[in-house]
Amino acid sequence: MSIETLTKSVRNIPDFPIPGIQFKDITTLFQSASHLKELSEILYDLYKEKGITKVVGIESRGFFMGPATAIKLNAGFVPIRKPGKLPYNVIEETYTKEYGEDTIQIHEDALNEDDVVLLHDDLLATGGTMVAAYNLVKKLGVKKIYINFLIELEELEGRLHFPTDVEINSIIKF
Amino acid sequence: MSIETLTKSVRNIPDFPIPGIQFKDITTLFQSASHLKELSEILYDLYKEKGITKVVGIESRGFFMGPATAIKLNAGFVPIRKPGKLPYNVIEETYTKEYGEDTIQIHEDALNEDDVVLLHDDLLATGGTMVAAYNLVKKLGVKKIYINFLIELEELEGRLHFPTDVEINSIIKF
Repeated sequence: MSIETLTKSVRNIPDFPIPGIQFKDITTLFQSASHLKELSEILYDLYKEKGITKVVGIESRGFFMGPATAIKLNAGFVPIRKPGKLPYNVIEETYTKEYGEDTIQIHEDALNEDDVVLLHDDLLATGGTMVAAYNLVKKLGVKKIYINFLIELEELEGRLHFPTDVEINSIIKF
Repeated sequence: MSIETLTKSVRNIPDFPIPGIQFKDITTLFQSASHLKELSEILYDLYKEKGITKVVGIESRGFFMGPATAIKLNAGFVPIRKPGKLPYNVIEETYTKEYGEDTIQIHEDALNEDDVVLLHDDLLATGGTMVAAYNLVKKLGVKKIYINFLIELEELEGRLHFPTDVEINSIIKF
């Protein structure tokens, strides 16, 4: 199966969640057993030689492939969540979105200085949430951070908001 | 590794999210590579001979092991989400919780009459959300439904709210 086949399995939803947005619906990819398995293998191949110790996934769609990829890489999985969801001591990062501010949190004991982190989410659009997640993970003093997205909307140039020495990969590009 | 070792890796958080609740924090299990892998293998062994074609996970913590289990079982993955999150045509189910009502949705084309479904969430407490999810999946006319939880709070007797002919499994019991 090719990346092109995976790409075609993503459903385009016009005007969701607001008029003018072409929403990329990955549920059509995930409900196909063969497409899901292929996606999983592509992710594994991308990171199998990086020495990843923890995959960090961002709520909610970053939870789809986060643990699955962690299992294949023999790594642990750590969630980044919205406020009020993580029950133990957290550190947080607040960032500006199009309409106001948002905050994300991570457990303060979830990562340490020996960790090589794969930071994962489903979609790179303008990159605001992932930049905040990158800053959040950096606060915990980890050894190295890789960044991965299932989908990248290339014309929005979200990559430009990250330090140039960070390896950023996306699988499906629109 | 034994179930007892997995059980001990779950962190107890007193009085979260409200006083009197002993919250079971599964993030401590997930951040351990060996515990996460063991959990994944136990889930696979439970369902490998059931002919599962779709794993359905309930937002948000049902997304952790839903896709991972689907990949191992050669099945697809389908999310059940809160209103406003799924972008295509949905069907929904509304149910009563302790403080008011809640609604969950699934894409109307996510399952069909040939599907053998593993319906998965992290926690069986009183069972309200999973009963609603079971009714929702039944509306799509699938062939058979199995139900799985990572954790079951046995004294709450949530199992009693399901039809007696449905196979319900939980891995860690408190």
